[in-house]
Amino acid sequence: MEQQTALRGVIAPVLTPFTPDLRPDAARLVKLCRWLIAKDTGLAVFGTTSEANSLSVAEKMTLLDAMIEAGLPPQRMMPGTGCSALTDTVELTRFVVRHGCGGVLMLPPFYYKGVTDDGLYASYSEVIERVGDARLRIYLYHIPQVSQVPLSPALIERLLAAYPGTIAGIKDSSGDWNSVRTLLEQFAPRGFAVYPGSETLLLAAMRGGGAGCISAQANVNPEANVRLYQTWQQPDADAQQAALIVLRTELLKFPMIPALKAVVAHGARDDAWATVRPPLVSLTAGQRAALVSALPAGYAPPAF
Amino acid sequence: MEQQTALRGVIAPVLTPFTPDLRPDAARLVKLCRWLIAKDTGLAVFGTTSEANSLSVAEKMTLLDAMIEAGLPPQRMMPGTGCSALTDTVELTRFVVRHGCGGVLMLPPFYYKGVTDDGLYASYSEVIERVGDARLRIYLYHIPQVSQVPLSPALIERLLAAYPGTIAGIKDSSGDWNSVRTLLEQFAPRGFAVYPGSETLLLAAMRGGGAGCISAQANVNPEANVRLYQTWQQPDADAQQAALIVLRTELLKFPMIPALKAVVAHGARDDAWATVRPPLVSLTAGQRAALVSALPAGYAPPAF
Repeated sequence: MEQQTALRGVIAPVLTPFTPDLRPDAARLVKLCRWLIAKDTGLAVFGTTSEANSLSVAEKMTLLDAMIEAGLPPQRMMPGTGCSALTDTVELTRFVVRHGCGGVLMLPPFYYKGVTDDGLYASYSEVIERVGDARLRIYLYHIPQVSQVPLSPALIERLLAAYPGTIAGIKDSSGDWNSVRTLLEQFAPRGFAVYPGSETLLLAAMRGGGAGCISAQANVNPEANVRLYQTWQQPDADAQQAALIVLRTELLKFPMIPALKAVVAHGARDDAWATVRPPLVSLTAGQRAALVSALPAGYAPPAF
Repeated sequence: MEQQTALRGVIAPVLTPFTPDLRPDAARLVKLCRWLIAKDTGLAVFGTTSEANSLSVAEKMTLLDAMIEAGLPPQRMMPGTGCSALTDTVELTRFVVRHGCGGVLMLPPFYYKGVTDDGLYASYSEVIERVGDARLRIYLYHIPQVSQVPLSPALIERLLAAYPGTIAGIKDSSGDWNSVRTLLEQFAPRGFAVYPGSETLLLAAMRGGGAGCISAQANVNPEANVRLYQTWQQPDADAQQAALIVLRTELLKFPMIPALKAVVAHGARDDAWATVRPPLVSLTAGQRAALVSALPAGYAPPAF
């Protein structure tokens, strides 16, 4: 059974631009989102790559309002709504659902460590009950190297049993193929959408019944990612996958989020894009020059 | 040079009570705070033990308002104000400073991991500049096993150099004596207040020039903690220290925050105190009975 959703495919955890005084820059965000939508890429705004956990709930709501007002399609949006505080997660999730977004990407509460599956179940359950909206579609967000709060298959099983219409899928950003494969085998046959959180696993995930991928690289290379998603059964799929990995390797020579922003700044000829919010730090001019000069032949940075 | 501050001594990271529907319970919080103040214990509300990162900024502001309105002394308060998002930290810190609190306990932004000292310096610096209030006194909060974002002596040195009147001290909750000792040796002689985050290190810290301790146990055993702080040069100090460790050992047979709440519920004969917010889970009735029956002879739970 294949789940019908407007969110299958390649989804970008959209970078958040900032003004020089570190306010979120809605106009630049809308511009990037329009370009991504035109490239057939979904919008996972407010993800890790979006520096979302450096933004207040109110800042995120203001940005989402601007995106909707600009005519961007909410059914192609999967905003991150999982905050550290229960009440923040509820407030933001409710807001996103009322805007008609296709789904939400939900981190577990991420401050306390070593919490139990009972505690995580209670967290998700409490949010679902409080939001109380049949339109809610939750994509769980497993990114243990950052959140330090992993989501186990046993927890997913329990959530699916209790909320089968609401628990729609998972983004697995562990980078561990065995983890993605386990999720695909155990849950994908039931229509549960499994997205690896890295484009390095896009082809393998598609071969295993995955729904696409939600990957930072989609911000700066949407066409190649979407092409692999659409043509993964073609003879050149492995070569396409290899090309995505070459770009990723260059990006990962630097901290990923500042590196992606530097590539956008370069491609869009707009230095404002290089700004990040603390605790992140922008690339130095030297780092940026090194990154730009090492970009693979044939790769074209965003130009919008 | 000894820093003059109303915050020296034993400070409790005050437990946050919840109503059955998981709203913060201001009336019960005020009751506990009054009891703690009567026992000569400072109030580090909104710390880790307070489940503060499970509360929204608005919920914390409402609780602080209630405490001030109830006549509790702001100069004896060190509310936690460090959030994941820069703008949340600024908003809450500004609010706390305007209420005349003696200081703030400030976590670094804790979602992104592997961040640099440059990024952490920018985080604290940005908050200080935005709050822009000469009354601000920041106690840094080093709790690497939970935040996963350690604060290095090099970072502290840099912050002290830039903001000598503002950076007032540190809570070191690493539980590592070598870490506390390093901070004492490097910074305490300059009037920088070093508080271990565990009562197990209270005596050693006092012998090394510490300012007291900020410890979960102070919620349920303030008198004994304060007595050791006040009489650490007396012959029975080691015996006092040993007794604190005996109680801690019993508490740590269970998850600490639910265990402390169970002890308060037991002592105050008020089951409402046992409630925690997800992702934490309350002790079961069996666990609570086991904990209560194992409490050391001579220890009296809170009765207020």
